[in-house]
Amino acid sequence: MNKQIILKSRPIGRPTADNFEIKAAPAILAKEGELLVKAKYVSVDPYMRGRMSDAKSYAPPFEVGKPIEGMVVAEVTESHHPNFKVGDAVVALLQWQEIQVVAAEKVTKLDKNIAPLSYYLGLLGMPGLTAYFGFIDIGKPLTGETVVVSGAAGAVGMVVGQIARLKGCRVIGIAGSDEKNALLLNKLKFDEVINYHKTENMVEAIAKACPNGVDIYFDNVGGIISDGVIANINKGARIVLCGQISLYNSTETPVGPRLQSLLLKKSALMQGFIITDYASRFPEGVSHLAQWLGEGMLSYQETIIKGFEKLPEAFIGLFEGKNTGKSLVEIE
Amino acid sequence: MNKQIILKSRPIGRPTADNFEIKAAPAILAKEGELLVKAKYVSVDPYMRGRMSDAKSYAPPFEVGKPIEGMVVAEVTESHHPNFKVGDAVVALLQWQEIQVVAAEKVTKLDKNIAPLSYYLGLLGMPGLTAYFGFIDIGKPLTGETVVVSGAAGAVGMVVGQIARLKGCRVIGIAGSDEKNALLLNKLKFDEVINYHKTENMVEAIAKACPNGVDIYFDNVGGIISDGVIANINKGARIVLCGQISLYNSTETPVGPRLQSLLLKKSALMQGFIITDYASRFPEGVSHLAQWLGEGMLSYQETIIKGFEKLPEAFIGLFEGKNTGKSLVEIE
Repeated sequence: MNKQIILKSRPIGRPTADNFEIKAAPAILAKEGELLVKAKYVSVDPYMRGRMSDAKSYAPPFEVGKPIEGMVVAEVTESHHPNFKVGDAVVALLQWQEIQVVAAEKVTKLDKNIAPLSYYLGLLGMPGLTAYFGFIDIGKPLTGETVVVSGAAGAVGMVVGQIARLKGCRVIGIAGSDEKNALLLNKLKFDEVINYHKTENMVEAIAKACPNGVDIYFDNVGGIISDGVIANINKGARIVLCGQISLYNSTETPVGPRLQSLLLKKSALMQGFIITDYASRFPEGVSHLAQWLGEGMLSYQETIIKGFEKLPEAFIGLFEGKNTGKSLVEIE
Repeated sequence: MNKQIILKSRPIGRPTADNFEIKAAPAILAKEGELLVKAKYVSVDPYMRGRMSDAKSYAPPFEVGKPIEGMVVAEVTESHHPNFKVGDAVVALLQWQEIQVVAAEKVTKLDKNIAPLSYYLGLLGMPGLTAYFGFIDIGKPLTGETVVVSGAAGAVGMVVGQIARLKGCRVIGIAGSDEKNALLLNKLKFDEVINYHKTENMVEAIAKACPNGVDIYFDNVGGIISDGVIANINKGARIVLCGQISLYNSTETPVGPRLQSLLLKKSALMQGFIITDYASRFPEGVSHLAQWLGEGMLSYQETIIKGFEKLPEAFIGLFEGKNTGKSLVEIE
């Protein structure tokens, strides 16, 4: 049986296993210009929570009763297009389905020699590009500046911190466990780390970790962690809004301190972005990331769960803060 | 007697007459390189409320027991510098004092032929420059875009709206009285106006006034008026933070909806600025504003109160929303 996973119901608050259902996929047949592909690595990403709600956002909502869709690395098992042959590895926005048909023009062929294939969902995929463009283009780092990254041990955050170091910045990472923080300090060479589960007063903790104040805050989490960081910004600071994972499961409008007066006093910038804003510049981003990886100046971490039917569990796990680096599911 | 006005005590919440005291100024004597000047027009500005608190901000706090200081247009009554002669009109950051000594290098000589002298505190002074640089440099207006201005009948807002029209934008002004709004519509040619005192649901009022959404929000007031505007921003919107007058007298940290998730979804920018950030470009700004004024493409309004001793009253009036355009005190 060729399995697929559908959105059974829209989550209210944190998603649960009940919101998903594993079903048999309908029969499929690849036509001219199409490929039959078999999923190898399926990405689970926090932004997908947004598509599970029916609120209008930058991507249209998933439909209840239809398969979830996300980024997938797959292998071509049947080709009806001259540019692809059986065994080619590709990445595309695909359904959560083991075997499926996709139009050849919607996939990108992958080079297995540059990086492990799974990296095309992480360091060389959307998370890496998100880190690259958000930090470089909005953060505009200068040598010697102080950078704080929340969700620092996540798929995006760990890339931001390493790029910040490459740009000569001092980097403080905020994450939720001592294990994650040990990785950030020892392997990824962050200058300092804060475990938010062990921090009572984030304003003071950031002030202590950043004696010269915060020049760039790359925000993946939002909420009270961000309040603590933002209270310490310098004149001319840039706050890059990448994610707000602490709020994605809120059932009411989150409330917090009004930030405008502080942004005004500090001539500071707060800017949101979506990685597709930078679609025309993806080749630039991939080329820099691949080069740094090849030179050993960037390293990457993954949390890989095995088994197609584990996809809902892997997705739900994103909101439990247990995973390090890029979370994905490997299909055997 | 040469009078001065000192900060007698720091206001808690809205300033009152008790926070100020009129005193006799000490004897003064102008030395080589200095001028003796007599105040003619004294500016009262909302930002000065910040300097009356002892919290750290972009300008140092006023000292209790010392004269208030602000922008003043004055006449030279005694010159000890070759570039100035008796009768010259100058503008400078001066004390609230009728007659005082100032170093010649701290004043700017004014041209009475370009505009009424009082305009150097308004349209051709900080408020006009604030409108110009905030709107042009951060707002980055494009022809056909929709612009909302809060505090639209104020010293800055009325300039922003007119520049927006000059740039081919559709302009919606928010102000607090029907008289102000009639002025905005009829004299200053705003496209549409909203009286916030008569608006129960600002989100809906903005949605109705801006059927194509909001591309630029020039914010002078903050608080719930801003919440209503920001709920209607378009993809790629720019929110220019110029003032937050509705919050300046708050005695607790103002709380409101967290905006980051919306800014993220909309790839929107929110940026604060202080006019002195643009000091090196003031000549550019003054030259554009003076040209538009000369061509009859900009007009300006003032609320002028007469008498030095009315300064505290004029300042307090800023927070009562009664004044239109630039508030200043004329000394006879």
